[in-house]
Amino acid sequence: MPVYKAPVEDTLFLLNDVFGIERYNNLPGFADASADVIEAVLGEGAKLCEEVLQPINYSGDQEGCTRHSDGRVTTPKGFKEAYEAYAGGGWIGLAMDPEYGGQGLPYTLGAVMNEYASAANMAFAMYPGLTMGAMAALYVHGSDEQKQTYLPKMIEGKWSGTMNLTEPHCGTDLGLLKTKAVPNGDGSYAITGTKIFISAGEQDITENIVHLVLARIEGAPAGTKGISLFVVPRNKLGLDGSVGANNGVSCGSIEHKMGIHGNATCVMNYEGAQGWLVGAENKGLNAMFVMMNEARLGVAIQGLAQSEVAYQNAVAYAKERLQGRALTGAKEPAKAADPIIVHPDVRRTLMSIRAFNEAARAFVLWNALKSDVAHRSGDAAERQAADDQLGLMTPVLKGVLTDVGFDNAVKAQQMFGGHGYIAETGVEQFVRDARIAMIYEGANGVQAMDLVGRKLGRDGGRAIMGFFNEVGGFLKDNAEDEALKPLLAPLQVSLGHLQQAAMWFMNNALARPDNAGAGATDFMHLLGLVSLGYMWAKMAKAAQEKLKAGADGATERMNAKLVTARFFMERSLPETAVHLARITAGADTTMALSAEQF
Amino acid sequence: MPVYKAPVEDTLFLLNDVFGIERYNNLPGFADASADVIEAVLGEGAKLCEEVLQPINYSGDQEGCTRHSDGRVTTPKGFKEAYEAYAGGGWIGLAMDPEYGGQGLPYTLGAVMNEYASAANMAFAMYPGLTMGAMAALYVHGSDEQKQTYLPKMIEGKWSGTMNLTEPHCGTDLGLLKTKAVPNGDGSYAITGTKIFISAGEQDITENIVHLVLARIEGAPAGTKGISLFVVPRNKLGLDGSVGANNGVSCGSIEHKMGIHGNATCVMNYEGAQGWLVGAENKGLNAMFVMMNEARLGVAIQGLAQSEVAYQNAVAYAKERLQGRALTGAKEPAKAADPIIVHPDVRRTLMSIRAFNEAARAFVLWNALKSDVAHRSGDAAERQAADDQLGLMTPVLKGVLTDVGFDNAVKAQQMFGGHGYIAETGVEQFVRDARIAMIYEGANGVQAMDLVGRKLGRDGGRAIMGFFNEVGGFLKDNAEDEALKPLLAPLQVSLGHLQQAAMWFMNNALARPDNAGAGATDFMHLLGLVSLGYMWAKMAKAAQEKLKAGADGATERMNAKLVTARFFMERSLPETAVHLARITAGADTTMALSAEQF
Repeated sequence: MPVYKAPVEDTLFLLNDVFGIERYNNLPGFADASADVIEAVLGEGAKLCEEVLQPINYSGDQEGCTRHSDGRVTTPKGFKEAYEAYAGGGWIGLAMDPEYGGQGLPYTLGAVMNEYASAANMAFAMYPGLTMGAMAALYVHGSDEQKQTYLPKMIEGKWSGTMNLTEPHCGTDLGLLKTKAVPNGDGSYAITGTKIFISAGEQDITENIVHLVLARIEGAPAGTKGISLFVVPRNKLGLDGSVGANNGVSCGSIEHKMGIHGNATCVMNYEGAQGWLVGAENKGLNAMFVMMNEARLGVAIQGLAQSEVAYQNAVAYAKERLQGRALTGAKEPAKAADPIIVHPDVRRTLMSIRAFNEAARAFVLWNALKSDVAHRSGDAAERQAADDQLGLMTPVLKGVLTDVGFDNAVKAQQMFGGHGYIAETGVEQFVRDARIAMIYEGANGVQAMDLVGRKLGRDGGRAIMGFFNEVGGFLKDNAEDEALKPLLAPLQVSLGHLQQAAMWFMNNALARPDNAGAGATDFMHLLGLVSLGYMWAKMAKAAQEKLKAGADGATERMNAKLVTARFFMERSLPETAVHLARITAGADTTMALSAEQF
Repeated sequence: MPVYKAPVEDTLFLLNDVFGIERYNNLPGFADASADVIEAVLGEGAKLCEEVLQPINYSGDQEGCTRHSDGRVTTPKGFKEAYEAYAGGGWIGLAMDPEYGGQGLPYTLGAVMNEYASAANMAFAMYPGLTMGAMAALYVHGSDEQKQTYLPKMIEGKWSGTMNLTEPHCGTDLGLLKTKAVPNGDGSYAITGTKIFISAGEQDITENIVHLVLARIEGAPAGTKGISLFVVPRNKLGLDGSVGANNGVSCGSIEHKMGIHGNATCVMNYEGAQGWLVGAENKGLNAMFVMMNEARLGVAIQGLAQSEVAYQNAVAYAKERLQGRALTGAKEPAKAADPIIVHPDVRRTLMSIRAFNEAARAFVLWNALKSDVAHRSGDAAERQAADDQLGLMTPVLKGVLTDVGFDNAVKAQQMFGGHGYIAETGVEQFVRDARIAMIYEGANGVQAMDLVGRKLGRDGGRAIMGFFNEVGGFLKDNAEDEALKPLLAPLQVSLGHLQQAAMWFMNNALARPDNAGAGATDFMHLLGLVSLGYMWAKMAKAAQEKLKAGADGATERMNAKLVTARFFMERSLPETAVHLARITAGADTTMALSAEQF
C-alpha cells in the first residue's frame, strides 16, 4: 500500500529560511501566523492528510463514484466523513475573511495545505478545492447578500461549490457557449443548458451544491462579450437558509475517466434553474477569471503533489527492493542482492524528481506569497509588482508543474518495474490522476499561449523585466560567493537563453504571430526552468547560511539541499538551450504542411 | 470511436525507396518477396488489422480478461476468432521455416505486421507475438523432436506460446530465481515454482499453451550460471499430438493492471509439471536471450505502434474539432470556429509525433533487415556486421521507441483536451497500453545499462565504430548536395556529441563504473536521436530522388517528408547537446547522498 508523509520540514525551511515569512508581518493575517502558529497549523494539516485522506485514496480510486438512476451520485466510502473532518478543522475557511467565518490566515498556508491534501488524495482534495475557488469568485464579485448567503455555509462544509464553464462544443473557446439565462422579472434568471466535465458536480457529501455557471443572457452580444456569471444552488434556499426542493439542476451522467475516480465528473443539466447574476452583466469571464487564476495555481500544486507522493513511494521501494549488485561492489553482501537505490540509473531518476519537487515547492510558495501581497498589501506599488509576477507566472506554474509532475509520476512508477503497472501497488494511480492536471483549467498549450500571447508583452513587458531584474540582481549580489559560483554560472547562462528567447519573439512574432505560437510551449518551459533554477539558487544560499550558523539537526538536510541544487544545475538547467533552439527555429516547418497532408 | 489505418504506403516507401529491399534478393525467402508480393502481403495484413483487430481494441480494454474460480481465463469477446483469422492468414508462421509449416518470408515483413497489429490492438497482438517469440527460441535451441512437436501446431494457431522468467522476488536479477527442476529419470523434469507477470499465461483461445520456463535443476550452481530452459506444455501431449490432461500447470490469479486489459497477466503455478530441457543444461539464459532479443524488438515496435495510432486519432480530431481562430485570421470563416489544426501549438505537437513515427519506422525496418541478414546471409562478414548492429541497437530500439512512444501517446491525448481523459474517446487507452512497453522485457533503465555496460565496449567498440563510420560516410558522400545541407549540418553536430559521449565514457567510466551508470539513459537517447536523425537523412535523400524522378502521385507525400525531416533536425535533434551535458556531468552529485538522506 502506498505511503505519504507531508514534507512539513521542507515547507518550514522555505517559509522561514528562504522567503523569510516574518517579513510579511505587516500584512493582515500574517501577524497571527507566527513561526510557532505556522508549525502547529501545518502539523495539524499534515496529520489530517496522512491519517484521514491518504488511507482512502486507493480505495476511492478502486471504488469510484456511482450515479444512480435518479441522478444522485455516491462518492467513495469515507469521503463524506473526510470532508466533515476537513471543514471541521477550519481548512476550507483558512484564508477567508473572518466576517464570513474564515480564519483570515495567509493564503500561502492554504496553498501548503492544498499540496499535502492533493498528495494524500487528489480526487478528494478537489471537493474542498473547488469550493474554495467558488468562494473566491463570490467574495470578489458577489453582492453582500450573496456573500452572507453562501460563504458561511461553504466554510462550515455544509455546502460545496463548483465551476461550470465547458459545454460539449466548447472548452477553451468559451465565446461559443450556448447556455442561456432568461430574466424572471424578480431579479433572478432562469438558466437552461448543458454543461460537461463538471468536477464534483454532484455528490452525497454536502447538503447543497453552489454552482457557478457561465451563461448568456437573452439578447447579449455574441462571443465572449456576452457571457455572464450566475450562482445557481442545486437546491432552493428557504429564507431561513434551509435547503428546499431541487432547483432544476441535475446530473445527467458521470464520465468514465482515466483517473480521479473518487471525484464525479458530471454532465450537468440546467432546466430553467433559478440563478442570480454574480458581478456585472456580460462580465462573467472577468468574474470567472478570479476563480480560474486561483484554480490554476491549485492545479499547479496538484502537479507538484503527485510528483511528491510518487517520489516518496519510489524512494521507499528503491530502499527495500533487492535486485542486482552495485557497480562498485556489493553494498549489502549479507543479503541476496543490494537494494536498487545503489544503482546510478535509479539514483539519477530519484534525484531528478527530487530536484524538481523541492524547487517547485519553492516556486509555488514564492508566488503564493505574492498572491497574499497582491491582495493584502497597503502599498499600491508592492501590490502591482506582486500582481505582475502572478499574472506572468500563473501559466508557467500551471503548465510546467503539471507537465513535469506527470512525467515524474511516470518516472517514479518506472522504479517499480512490473509491480508499478499493477493497480494494488498504488503508483499507477498517481500517473492516471496526475494526467488530468495537464488538461483541465486550460490545457497546457493554452497556458503557453496565455503566457506568450498575453502576459509577456503586457504593459511593455513590465512583468518579465521585473523577473530579469530580480534574477540578474541576485546573480550580481552573490557574484563573489565562491561556494555559490558552480550554481550561479549555469543560471546566468540559462537566464541569457531566456532573454534571447524573449528578444527573438519581440523581433519575430509581432509581424508573424505563428512564430509566437510555435514557440509558446518551449518558452513556458524555458521560463519555468529559469524560475526553478532561481529557486535553487535561493535555497542553496539559505542552506549555506543555515550551515554557517550551525544547523543543529538540519545539517544533513542542508547538505542534501546543496547536492540537489547542483544536480539541478548540471542536469535539468541545460535544457534551456534546447528550448531556445526550438523557439528560434520559428514556425516555418511547423506550419508548412497543409491540413490535408496530415 | 478510435480509428486506425495501417501506413502501408509509408512502409513501402521505406522498403523500396530507402532501403532497397530488392538488393537482398540473394537471401533465402527474399526472392519470393518481390515488390508486388510485398505490397499484396502488407495489404492483406493491413485489412486484417483494420477490420478485425482494431474494432475489438476498445471493447477488449473495457471488458478485460476474467479468471474463473477453476483457474480458466476468458479473454474478451472476439479475441478467439481474431486469433483464428490471424493464424489462418499465415501470419504466425510468416517468417518461419517452411519445414514446420511456415512461409519462410523475410522477418522484416513480420516486423511490419507486428507494427500494424500492435497499433490496431496491442493486447491482442501479444498473443501471437509471444507465440512467435517462443517459436524462435525453440527453433534455435530445441531438439528436432521438439521442433516437430511444437512448431507446426503453433504456426497453425492451435497452440500458443509464453515466456516464464519473472518470480515475485526477481525480475531483472534472474540469478535469484528459485523455480526448481527435478529429473524424472525418463529424460523429462518435474518443474515446481511460481512465476509472475506471465503475459498470455492462460486464455481460452488455443487448445494448448506451450510455456517456456526458466528453472534451476537440482544441484545446479547458484546465480545465472545454474539456470536452464524448459518447455512445459499446459496440457500433456498424446503420442498422436492430441491434447491430454492438465500437466500440473495452473493460473493462480490474474493482475489488475493499468492497461493491456485484453491480455491476461498471470501468476503461474507449476506443481511438478512435466517439462523438457531446451538446449543445454545451465545454459537457459542463452536460450532465453534468443527469445528476449526478438521480444525486445517486438516491444520497441509496440512503442512505435501506440505512437502511430495515437497520432492518427489526434490528427483526425484536430481536423474536426472547431475551437478558436487561427492567429493569422479565420481559416474557415463560415464556421463557428476554425479546426484546431490551425493552431501552431497543435501543429507543433502533431509534427513532433509524426517526425518521430516516420523515423522510428525506418529505424525498425533498417534493423529488421539486419536481423534477416544476420540469420540468413551466406557471407560471414556480412552476418557479423549485421549482428554487431543488432546487438548495439536492440536496447536503443527498445528503450527509445517505448519512452518516446509513450510520451507521444500522452501528447496525442493532450490534443483532445478534456475529451482525451474520457475512456470512450479511446485515446487514454493508448497511453495506458503504451506504458507497459517501457517496463517489460527489461525496464528501459536496464536497456540503457545493457547498452553502455555491455554493448558499447564489446569487441573493442566494433559495433559503435561501425555506426560512426556508416553515418560519417553518408555525411561525407552527400556533403556536396546543397538541398540536403540544412539537414546534414545538424546531424554532423549531433554525431559529434555522440562521439564525445562515447569518448567520455572511455576516459571516465572504466575507473569509475558509476559514471557509466549515471549517463546510461542519456547515452541511450543520444544514440537513438542520432539514429533517427540518420534515418531522416536517408529518407530525405530518397524523397528527393523520387521527386527528381517524377514522383507521380507521391509528390505531396515526398514534399511532406522533406518538411518533416527538417522539423526533426530543427526541433528534436538539438536534444543531443543536453544528453551530452548530462553524461559529462558524471556521477558525483547523482551518487552523493546516502540512502538515508532520501
